[in-house]
Parts: sequence; structure tokens; C-alpha cells
Amino acid sequence: MIKEWVKSKKPDEEQLNQRLEEARLQLAKRQQMIKEKKLPVLVVMDGWGAAGKGSVLGRMIKNLDPRFFKTFTLTKASEEEKRRPFLYRYVSKIPEAGKFVFFDGSWMDEVTRQYLKEVISKEEYEKRLESIRRFERQLHDNGYLVVKFFFQIGQEEQKQRLKLLKKDKNTDWRVDKWDEWQNKHYDRCMEIYDKYLDATNQFIAPWYFVDSKNRKWAELQMTELLIQSIDIALQNVGSPVPILQNTFPLVKMPLLSEVSLDQTVADEEYRQELDKLQKRLSQLHNELYHKKIPVIIAYEGWDAAGKGGNIKRLAAALDPRGYEVHPIASPEPHEKSRHYLWRFWTRLPKDGHIAIFDRTWYGRVMVERLEGFCSENDWQRAYTEINEFEKELYDWGAVIIKFWVQIDKDTQLARFTDRQNTPEKQWKITDEDWRNREKWDQYEVAVNEMLQKTSTEFAPWYILESNDKHYARLKALRTVVDALEKRLHQKK
Amino acid sequence: MIKEWVKSKKPDEEQLNQRLEEARLQLAKRQQMIKEKKLPVLVVMDGWGAAGKGSVLGRMIKNLDPRFFKTFTLTKASEEEKRRPFLYRYVSKIPEAGKFVFFDGSWMDEVTRQYLKEVISKEEYEKRLESIRRFERQLHDNGYLVVKFFFQIGQEEQKQRLKLLKKDKNTDWRVDKWDEWQNKHYDRCMEIYDKYLDATNQFIAPWYFVDSKNRKWAELQMTELLIQSIDIALQNVGSPVPILQNTFPLVKMPLLSEVSLDQTVADEEYRQELDKLQKRLSQLHNELYHKKIPVIIAYEGWDAAGKGGNIKRLAAALDPRGYEVHPIASPEPHEKSRHYLWRFWTRLPKDGHIAIFDRTWYGRVMVERLEGFCSENDWQRAYTEINEFEKELYDWGAVIIKFWVQIDKDTQLARFTDRQNTPEKQWKITDEDWRNREKWDQYEVAVNEMLQKTSTEFAPWYILESNDKHYARLKALRTVVDALEKRLHQKK
Repeated sequence: MIKEWVKSKKPDEEQLNQRLEEARLQLAKRQQMIKEKKLPVLVVMDGWGAAGKGSVLGRMIKNLDPRFFKTFTLTKASEEEKRRPFLYRYVSKIPEAGKFVFFDGSWMDEVTRQYLKEVISKEEYEKRLESIRRFERQLHDNGYLVVKFFFQIGQEEQKQRLKLLKKDKNTDWRVDKWDEWQNKHYDRCMEIYDKYLDATNQFIAPWYFVDSKNRKWAELQMTELLIQSIDIALQNVGSPVPILQNTFPLVKMPLLSEVSLDQTVADEEYRQELDKLQKRLSQLHNELYHKKIPVIIAYEGWDAAGKGGNIKRLAAALDPRGYEVHPIASPEPHEKSRHYLWRFWTRLPKDGHIAIFDRTWYGRVMVERLEGFCSENDWQRAYTEINEFEKELYDWGAVIIKFWVQIDKDTQLARFTDRQNTPEKQWKITDEDWRNREKWDQYEVAVNEMLQKTSTEFAPWYILESNDKHYARLKALRTVVDALEKRLHQKK
Repeated sequence: MIKEWVKSKKPDEEQLNQRLEEARLQLAKRQQMIKEKKLPVLVVMDGWGAAGKGSVLGRMIKNLDPRFFKTFTLTKASEEEKRRPFLYRYVSKIPEAGKFVFFDGSWMDEVTRQYLKEVISKEEYEKRLESIRRFERQLHDNGYLVVKFFFQIGQEEQKQRLKLLKKDKNTDWRVDKWDEWQNKHYDRCMEIYDKYLDATNQFIAPWYFVDSKNRKWAELQMTELLIQSIDIALQNVGSPVPILQNTFPLVKMPLLSEVSLDQTVADEEYRQELDKLQKRLSQLHNELYHKKIPVIIAYEGWDAAGKGGNIKRLAAALDPRGYEVHPIASPEPHEKSRHYLWRFWTRLPKDGHIAIFDRTWYGRVMVERLEGFCSENDWQRAYTEINEFEKELYDWGAVIIKFWVQIDKDTQLARFTDRQNTPEKQWKITDEDWRNREKWDQYEVAVNEMLQKTSTEFAPWYILESNDKHYARLKALRTVVDALEKRLHQKK
């Protein structure tokens, strides 16, 4: 598409200055407006090396209040970032509600470069494109404005600019090998960029081309387009969006009411088996670490179902340097003001590490649904969003294991009462637990729907029958051991 | 995507009947709601032959008030339709605001079939996909709800159904050769369908898969998804949408103020030249007719600029069986309640014919813009929408010529005064003309913007300097003759 694009005419200097002054003023006004309407704005700047993105951005933000924006120059991933899914470094930097984030360079640069340099295959590249489309769509659907700019200059222009930059000792550091490679292979790059732009030119995050021959003119184009996009987005704050159908392969799950809970295990068997499984897990953890395989274990379940004790037995088998437990409470203000999956993205383990989540992103379709913390459109959409999130983790190479810790209502009552009556356990029981208990039936409907809609082949749910906590612990350990064995010793 | 899709579980008979009863009731209620909010709803049903689309649709509409919906079975294009752009038969049937249209079969069926049967090349197929994406996006952007269903059955199921249908004399007409071909080449079809679904699964018109093993269950899935989509769309009625950047190659146009208007032509030269050009045009018209090339000539210009007389001289050269002049006034109610390009789509010529439009779709960015008949978001978007429309005509094979008939303000005043003072010309001048004249400057801004943004290489604007009407007429004829010569006797 950019190949066919013909630039519009640059206005004369006087007009340009006038319009630029006005545009800067208008953009500054938009700060207050997006703050009031709590609109998060992610501005993505891509384009050719030496096209002047940096200097446009530098000028642009002079007008903005530094409390309301952040800029990131996204050239190379750090070692820490490389050990996470490729979208991690971008997701972790998305704006809060009511603020701007400017990305100088983005996922486009990263994936097209890898493809051009043959670091990733065509197949992997296509997969990345799919991930990117999903990521941008999820941002939009969750209320983000995503505006993407591509800074365009011709091959000769780029060549001249690189030459000039290199001549000067103060600027030669700005030219890297990649810029020169790009200029040398301009046509090939153009071909790939053009296809990329076409494949990601979505309604929910369209591309805008910026004629970058002149710095001021580029700034004007970008500022005017950004203002236009903001004004439209402001009018659409809070609009519901279409709910996409799940197309991931699902694993059939029973209804909670069909789950038998009378399994037990004898004390002696428990101790022996626990010991055996923990030893095995410990060995597997070592292997994982060396093979750099990340593992994500998610716990959900009824209050007093025994999640804590279960996690403890699992963690006991692990080397503390290689795992982390994340207890998930209500989101903090800075978490609440971002995409609901953000606080989980930022807690992802490094490769080779294990992350155990005590309560998870499934809060969206349970407590947030039932308490009205999000709209119906939000939680209806969340099943697919969560499946997409987990698919991303799977594609990264993660083993994903999700436990629903199941007990019956009577068992819960007995445990609540016991907690209430035992001084050293009293901290474990709150009024909220009792209130939640009253909503048991509503929760059961939500949990059933969740299990049906999010148990995918790549991230299945396992039910831990936990009326007998010992039984549940052994089952958890066994499930984890099996899943890891499978991943380590069999073909994927 | 459909390859991976796993159906959700069909509820038991009792539950199914209950939910179906409720869903039918709810859908019936939506009729009134979409009528009130003036939401047009286009429901597209695609899928395998014998998947039961027809019978689901038949049952579904039993509940609806026939005044508020239309159904179309879109199997084969008629001879009349084949002589128009491939989207013509679909565009011409889009719903009015506040009404349903159900398509049994759609553009998907047509283009995938042509591709599978190798009637069109991969390249043509890709172009069709692009057209379809644009078409669906334009509908969405102009306030349409577009919901697409794909009715899925397996190869064996289809085979059995076709066998059963053929056995019975009352139903054997429902099986055609295509159904049987499809069943025989099920895997190949599946591959193409899957890619098609993926390529057209846009946010603005998502696909929903319907497990079609059981008629009632299929109806329930479709009805529930349709209700959900309607409810979301109702909340978004009137929302502005992002404005896409033009990416078509533009031809540089002068500003109106830069156009010199002092050209004249002597009477004798006029007569001779007119005669010569008309004769040439007449010959070319014949050739066009035989080569089935459609021609679209669009006239816009100031009041009293001389459009009428200009068109008359052009038309005089043409065989009346091969052309039509469309004077365009304000839209009728049934036109106003559809996409603003609809009334032009439905007036497209057959191939080999010439359509002359006296005023055009450019009303959107002139009178509708200035009089506030559409929102700013609407007319801002229209430049790209119109370029896309004309690209569609160009891809169909049309020659597109657009004239702006230009005069200066003094000349208009002189002609207005003359009309006012000449009894037989008085009908030609109205109060509205005088009102429009007062807005000359605003119009000039709009016209300049229009000329800059919509003069594409495939559908350029030509300015006819019409202070001397004779000069303008000759220039119009010459422009048309040149364009047709070029199309007929040179490589495209």
C-alpha cells in the first residue's frame, strides 16, 4: 500500500508554520481531554532509519506536560526481555488510562527485521503477524486508542542522510549497521514493509504514512492525524465491541455438578507419594531450567478449597531461585488503569522459570463479572482474549497448567467454621468470604462457563477434587509432573 | 480458522427448545429496536451445500414482520448482473435503515467458487478479497451492522444429506452439480474457505461459525449470535469511525484560483471541431459497445457553468441505445436510508454502455458537507470511500472521466441575471442558486479539497474552463475522445 501512496503537497513555509502552531496548541489541549475521559493513547512511530522519527518526537513532546506521557525508544530487546514472549516488552509499556505513550520503533521493526535477516522463518513471521493483530485488537477492544505512523523517505534521501550523520562526530553514533543494511536493501525492505503495513492496517489500529522529507512537515502531518484520531476515539469511549467467536481447539470439561468429590488418600500413601512426586518434580525443574522452558501454573478455586496448602507442597519441591509465587489480590490503581491482562503480562516468568499464580486473570470472568467491575461486553469478550493470551504463552514455549480446586458447599462451611473458631486461623476468614459464599450458585454458573470456554488443548484446565486436601495435592503434583515429562521427553 | 474450531456442546432437547423459544422472542423484539434506531442489518449466511442455511432461514423469518426484512438467495448472477461489477448484485440489495436483509449465499460463495473452479486467477482472487474487505468496511463505517455466519458440516454428513435429497423427487432439484463437486473436493474447498474466512474476519464484520448438524441447534446458535451482535450495534449507532489515509496514486491538481479562464474559441472553429469530435466519438462508442467496455462520465461544476449544454453536445454524438444520462437531484427517502453510494451503484451502466452523471456522488463532499447533511466524520471519510468506489469501477474495466466545469464569479452573476431576465430561461434559476452563490467561498474550499484528494490515476478530474462554453464543450469532447482512444487502442 505504501508503494502506491503519493504524498500530499507540503504547504509553503508560512502556512506550514501557522498550521503547526495551531496543531501543537490543539494537541496540548487533547492532554486534558484524554485525561478527563480516561482514554489511554498509544502512539506508534515506525519507518525508515534516519527518517527523523526521533527529532519529530522530540519536538512534539516539548508541548506536552511530562506527567502525562512517556516515550520509549525500542531498538534492541534487553537480555531480560529476550527471555519473555516477544510482545512482553511492548505490553509492559502500554499507557495508563488518560495518558500518552509514544513508541519510537515498535514490534513492526522487530519482526520485519528478524524476517528480513532470516532470523525467523516465513511461518514464524506469519504467526507473529497474527499475534500482533490480536494484540492491537485487544488494546482497541479494551478502550485504547492505537495510532500507527510510518515515516517514509526514499532510498536516495536515506543514503544522503546517513552520509551526513556519519560525517559528524556528534551524530555518527546514530547510524548503525542496520540502517546501512536497510539502505542497501531498500527495495527488498520496501516489499516486506509494504506487505506488513497491508496485513496490519486494521480498522482498530490503522496506519498513517508520514512524508518525512522535511521535519516540520512530518511533525505537522503526524500531529494533525493524531488529533483527528483522538477526537474520534474520545467520542467512542466506552463503546461495546463485537464479541469474536472462539476458534481455538477446546478440551471438553465436565460441569462442576458432575465432579465426584469422594476421593481420598490414606496418610501413609500420601506421605510416600508426596515425597516421590516432589523428588521427581525437583529433577524436572532442573531440566526445565537448563532447557529454558517457562512454566505457568494457575490456581483458581473456591474460598477455603485448599489452594494455599496445595501451592505450598508444589513450591516445596522447587529451587527457590527458579520459581515465584504470585498471590493475586484486587488490582492496584496503576494496574486497574491498564488492560486487565497487563498485571499478568508483567509477572510472566523468565524462560526456564516457573510462575505460580494464586488466583489469576480468570478474575475477569468470575469476580469482575459477578460484582459488575467490568461490563458484560468486557467479560463476554474475555474468554477469547484469555485464550489468545495463553496461546501467546504457548507459542513462546511455555507449559501452561490451570487448576480449579473444587470442594462442595458443605466442606466449605465446615472449613469456614473451623477457621472462625480457631484463633490462629481467624485471619484466613473475612466477611467477604461469607458474602462470596452466598453467591455460590452464581459463581458456579460463571465457573462452568469459564471451564467450558477456556480449556484449550494448549492450556487445559484440571480439576483438583479437594474435599480431601491430600488427594488434591497429590493430583496437582502428578498433573504437573506429567505435563512437564510430556513437554521435556516427548515431541510437542 | 474453521479447521481448528471445535463446536460447543448441543444442549439437550428440552433446553434447546426453551432457549430457542426465548431467542425467537428476543429476535422479534429486535425488529422494533432496529427500526427505532434506524439500524440497517445485513445478515450473511454462507457455508457448505446442504448445510441447511435455507431451512434455518425459513424458520427464522417466520417470527419476523415481513415489512421489516427481505431475503435473497444469491446463487447465480443473472445476465444483467454479470454485465456489472461483481459487487453490484450485493450492493444493490443492501438493507434500508431500520430493516433486515438476509443473504442466503453471498460474495464469499461466488469468489471462492470461481477461484476453486479456476475461473479467476490467484491474483484476481486476491483483488476480489480486497474489494470485499473494503465493501464490508464501508458498510460498517456508514452505520450498517454486517453479521456473517458460516454453516459448517463434515464431508460425510454432507454426502449423506445430498444422497437423501436426491432420492426424493420433491427435493432432488435442490442438489446441483456444484454441491456434488464440493463434496468430492471437500478438503480442497475447506482449505480455501478457511483462508477466506481468516482473510475476511474483520473486526467490522466478524465471522461466526454455526454447527449445522441439527437444524434447531443451528437456528439457536445463529439467533443468539445475531441478537448479541444487534445489541452491541444498537449501542454504537452514530459512532464516528477512524478515517483511513488515502493510499491510491493521486494526480496533482491545480487550485481553482490558479485556473486561467480566458480561453476562447472562434465560432467557425467551434463548429468544425465540434463536428469532427462528435463523429470520432460516435465511432468510438461503437467500438466500446462491441468490446463491452463501460464508460462513466461525471459532471460537477458551479451553477450556470454550462453543464447541461456540455452534456448535450456529448450525448448528441452517442447512439441512444448505448448511453444514459442521470440527472442527480436530492436523494429520495429510499435512497437516503441507504449507503450514500447506493443510488450510484444502482445506476451503473451495463458493460459497453456509457453513463453520464449530471452531478454525482461528490455531493457528499460538497453540498452534504456544507449543508451539514452528513457529519464531519462522514465527509472526511468519503474521499477514501469514493476513491475505493471508483477503483472498483476501474477494476471492473470502466473508463472513468470526471469533469469540473469551472467559471468565475462574475460570469455566474451575468448568467444568473440573464436567466432571471429571459422568460424562457427563468425555470433554470431558483432561490437556491442564489443561496449557493453566497457560499461560493466555502464551496471553493470544498471543491479544492475534493480535487486534491480524489483525482486518482485511474479516475482523474479534468477542469473544463467554461467562461466560454464553446471552449468547454470542445475540451470535454476531446478529453473523452482521448481517454477512449487510449483505452481502446493502447495498452492499459
